[in-house]
Amino acid sequence: MALIAPSRRVRRTPFSAGVEAAGVKAYTVYNRMLLPTMFESIEADYHHLKKHVQVWDVSCERQVQISGPQAQKLLQILTPRDLGKLRPSKGLYIPVVDQHGCMLNDPVLLQVDADTFWVSIADSDLLLWIKALTVSNGFELEVTEPDVSPLAVQGPKAEALMARVFGDAVCDLKFFGAGRFGFQEHDFVITRSGYSKQGGFEIYVEDTSRGMPLWEALFEAGGDLDVRAGCPNVIERIEGGLLSYGNDMTDENSPLECGLEKYVDANQLDVCLGGRALKEELAAGSTQLVRAIEIDTQSLPICDRAWPLYVGAARVGQVTSAAYSPDIGKGVGIGMVSKGHWANGTAVEVETPEGRFEAAVREEFWA
Amino acid sequence: MALIAPSRRVRRTPFSAGVEAAGVKAYTVYNRMLLPTMFESIEADYHHLKKHVQVWDVSCERQVQISGPQAQKLLQILTPRDLGKLRPSKGLYIPVVDQHGCMLNDPVLLQVDADTFWVSIADSDLLLWIKALTVSNGFELEVTEPDVSPLAVQGPKAEALMARVFGDAVCDLKFFGAGRFGFQEHDFVITRSGYSKQGGFEIYVEDTSRGMPLWEALFEAGGDLDVRAGCPNVIERIEGGLLSYGNDMTDENSPLECGLEKYVDANQLDVCLGGRALKEELAAGSTQLVRAIEIDTQSLPICDRAWPLYVGAARVGQVTSAAYSPDIGKGVGIGMVSKGHWANGTAVEVETPEGRFEAAVREEFWA
Repeated sequence: MALIAPSRRVRRTPFSAGVEAAGVKAYTVYNRMLLPTMFESIEADYHHLKKHVQVWDVSCERQVQISGPQAQKLLQILTPRDLGKLRPSKGLYIPVVDQHGCMLNDPVLLQVDADTFWVSIADSDLLLWIKALTVSNGFELEVTEPDVSPLAVQGPKAEALMARVFGDAVCDLKFFGAGRFGFQEHDFVITRSGYSKQGGFEIYVEDTSRGMPLWEALFEAGGDLDVRAGCPNVIERIEGGLLSYGNDMTDENSPLECGLEKYVDANQLDVCLGGRALKEELAAGSTQLVRAIEIDTQSLPICDRAWPLYVGAARVGQVTSAAYSPDIGKGVGIGMVSKGHWANGTAVEVETPEGRFEAAVREEFWA
Repeated sequence: MALIAPSRRVRRTPFSAGVEAAGVKAYTVYNRMLLPTMFESIEADYHHLKKHVQVWDVSCERQVQISGPQAQKLLQILTPRDLGKLRPSKGLYIPVVDQHGCMLNDPVLLQVDADTFWVSIADSDLLLWIKALTVSNGFELEVTEPDVSPLAVQGPKAEALMARVFGDAVCDLKFFGAGRFGFQEHDFVITRSGYSKQGGFEIYVEDTSRGMPLWEALFEAGGDLDVRAGCPNVIERIEGGLLSYGNDMTDENSPLECGLEKYVDANQLDVCLGGRALKEELAAGSTQLVRAIEIDTQSLPICDRAWPLYVGAARVGQVTSAAYSPDIGKGVGIGMVSKGHWANGTAVEVETPEGRFEAAVREEFWA
């Protein structure tokens, strides 16, 4: 593997000093910001995440802050999800689609204040989309990227660690629940969420200068919990069926293809941009769907491009994320599978740069 | 330095196989695509670029394709540059600004056909900005990212190499001139341009499958010219004053601050979004300007964040790109300098993570 070249354009985070001191070995770039991908090894990080607790620098989940009385009206244009349920105590996962009903991002939406919202984005400059829609539609809104950097605490001991730093009340948060909790004279927005299936929290750190004091407090409080610096783990997230924008879905996919139909509300499709295309797809049915792909192998190359799926000579889809899973004892993958082949148990072949592997389509993920 | 983690999200290019075979040592990520940054070493690559010829995979300069009779009308909303001079035989460098007159990108605009344009972008998802403006303003346009990947041929022997592959007529192109030239039954759009001061061309490779045949033909034709795989070189581009979006200018800077006033045409400011802010800045004067910064040192750390500039205790700007230049024998940098301190020769101090260095503001770059 090659090195990553540092430059100002690939932005450091409030926690970069901590990440470096913890011995980060690899990065990716996400929203033009550094995102660690490996500390000890992908497999060692995976086992640790499932047993203990990790602190993740996920600053790259940048916020688009939308402020003003018309904010909710604008937001409802962005997504087919009904935002009627939105309240300050709960985050909402929202597909954001273009005029063709195709995915532009899959952020988490938080109501920070009566008229202030944070859209916590995946890897695309959704700020530009939202700013342009705001300006063109004459909305009186302020749309900015504030100095807010999420820090995730993930793993089975996440509750124990968070309670020590923020108090026991943080454990009362329900899944995707949000609240403000104090640390060193500041109340941080915290949600019970994160890009793993091991349970945990995300702390929205406002103001870069508050980053390292919080990072250090978490490590000081968690010594006996075997707390470590970590990062989203490709094996664990595939087992759990956590899709990655840019990997498992792109602006060529609709939310229905991505298995996000529960976030597509029929009553919003006249309001949401792209709603007409989604109505048509709902009526006609999708032509491909996201599926788990179980690959019959003990080792896999790194999945750095789409791997075609075949049934005989017919191409029936592609795998877009994959890794060998020590706990499953096989390869685990996420792919898009064509109509007629997406039933549970369908036998397929995956073509990788290191040859073909037997595989099976699954309707459920592993964790 | 840490490794770069491969994934589908960080896209490979039509030339990745060639880049890997040539022994790429480091990458950055640009428009969510791999961009090589080093082959032998930054300094060895620099010396080679100034003497011979290099082939650069700059696929990451993605195109936003705008097609339709209203395309030029939309384009004039995006930029303060007068597009009256636009014709198929010439590319135009255009600052693209938001409603506040701040830089969203600094692409090169090409007219590919009567009603088809390519916006060859720097590192931000300008596609989202243009799509949203198109939809919101009711323009009947198709806005897409086509399968077009630029390949640059740069260096003093670039003409010699290009003539062998595309014929002598390619040498008739003037600076930023554009034309179509044949290779293996396809006419490629070629411009005399590129992100170096050594002279050269950019070939807009339509269709991924044509990438490696062209790559290989260039290397076969250039053996005696010492052709090598290369990439934009940080030392060379700083010497030449080539600004980098995301490094030397961001969405917090106006084109006037970035020294791009010759691309801000007064007669367009009533049409261009953000024109009012630019008029005000033209009237009031800018509060900071891009400048060359000559740093009195024989070695510098990697510039991976903004380095503050001081005069005594007063902060007077920041350096955003810097490297030691073997040919200049000093550190060379690009920075933003506050009013009152940007005169040629102003003595300043640069604060880096490895200490302070004496430096001088320069009105001209080195090459």
